[in-house]
Amino acid sequence: MKRSVVIVAGGSGSRMGSDTPKQFMELSQKPILIHTINKFYRFDKNIEIVLVLPEDQIKHWETICTEHSFSIAHHIVAGGKTRFHSVKNGVESLSNSDVIAIHDGVRPLVSNDTIERCYNTANETGSAIPVLPVTESLRKGNLKKSKAVDRTKFYSVQTPQTFRAKLLHKAYDQEWLPEFTDDASVIEKMGHPITMVIGNHENIKITHQPDLKIAEMLLQEMKTEK
Amino acid sequence: MKRSVVIVAGGSGSRMGSDTPKQFMELSQKPILIHTINKFYRFDKNIEIVLVLPEDQIKHWETICTEHSFSIAHHIVAGGKTRFHSVKNGVESLSNSDVIAIHDGVRPLVSNDTIERCYNTANETGSAIPVLPVTESLRKGNLKKSKAVDRTKFYSVQTPQTFRAKLLHKAYDQEWLPEFTDDASVIEKMGHPITMVIGNHENIKITHQPDLKIAEMLLQEMKTEK
Repeated sequence: MKRSVVIVAGGSGSRMGSDTPKQFMELSQKPILIHTINKFYRFDKNIEIVLVLPEDQIKHWETICTEHSFSIAHHIVAGGKTRFHSVKNGVESLSNSDVIAIHDGVRPLVSNDTIERCYNTANETGSAIPVLPVTESLRKGNLKKSKAVDRTKFYSVQTPQTFRAKLLHKAYDQEWLPEFTDDASVIEKMGHPITMVIGNHENIKITHQPDLKIAEMLLQEMKTEK
Repeated sequence: MKRSVVIVAGGSGSRMGSDTPKQFMELSQKPILIHTINKFYRFDKNIEIVLVLPEDQIKHWETICTEHSFSIAHHIVAGGKTRFHSVKNGVESLSNSDVIAIHDGVRPLVSNDTIERCYNTANETGSAIPVLPVTESLRKGNLKKSKAVDRTKFYSVQTPQTFRAKLLHKAYDQEWLPEFTDDASVIEKMGHPITMVIGNHENIKITHQPDLKIAEMLLQEMKTEK
């Protein structure tokens, strides 16, 4: 199986209260994106890595790579106006893959097992997205009017969302629709079913300032377990 | 407004991989339950506090209080066979309140603001439960068949779930039903609407081992902010 991964890093630092885009912030003295790329490279030394970055961050990223002597091979592709367009640019830059994973740049704590489950299942069924059961009570509605829902029927979705390359290329040839909130929804629009696999608890998306400290702690824990 | 709180602590240590019930585990050298009780006492020095514990943990708790010279007044009530029955025992031990909050013993990081919003809103509307918008993509179904749902319509529910005392007493006179997953669902069954208020990010439920470390970190952060 020829594996590729499109790592999408579109964030600014605004929600972190910082000028540094969140994907460039440091975790254990290394930018988040370096951790993320390392995770996929360690899983498969022959993997093809595409990094999608906002055009105006590409120079900054190249400087960071030099400063950190970061030498894992990856193509850099400029992002588009929505996440859909960014992923599309990344997917279209790949021509020679069997299975392609799409991964959030700010999820550096994805486990080797999660990555493996995603590629293997997508190779078999066409699609694989990592999920975890929802553990808190859920309500549906708005602050004024809401009702309890049965949380055991709900799963929260992580990345890498992983697909057979042919299917993914075809999916991203569709016109953009506002309902495309993640890659699974783009595939689903074509009528192809989505297979869910279990993700890992540590695979959080670093969005707000406290997430960075939580990630730091989880990272230390994952290191100890090895 | 005469305020009461029923703190429900029914956990064993099984999910934590420990013999110590999770509510007795220590956070910054103090049992989780002491932190939780302190939060409500600091908010209102005249609050009436009821602690619901499994019968076979009451002696252990009394020893802990002595060891930690913990002297905040609280009644101890033995729990029942489900959460509903435990809360019912706690609520029935109170006869002189205007507004009663029901709070998970293992949520020691509830903020003063969240507690205040809950009591004030419940006093006005009859009910208040603290929630946060869901931030990850959600799917509904099971591992074999699922569909994307619009996460902006969903909220995850915290505690203290807070109600006018008369309403709560009436609600807990109902017969137990399996659909009673939290206090809001018991109130809802009587046809009374539920008001949602915003909770706080740190107000996590300590369930698994990593939660304890995350809580430790969030606790330090909340201290620094003061």
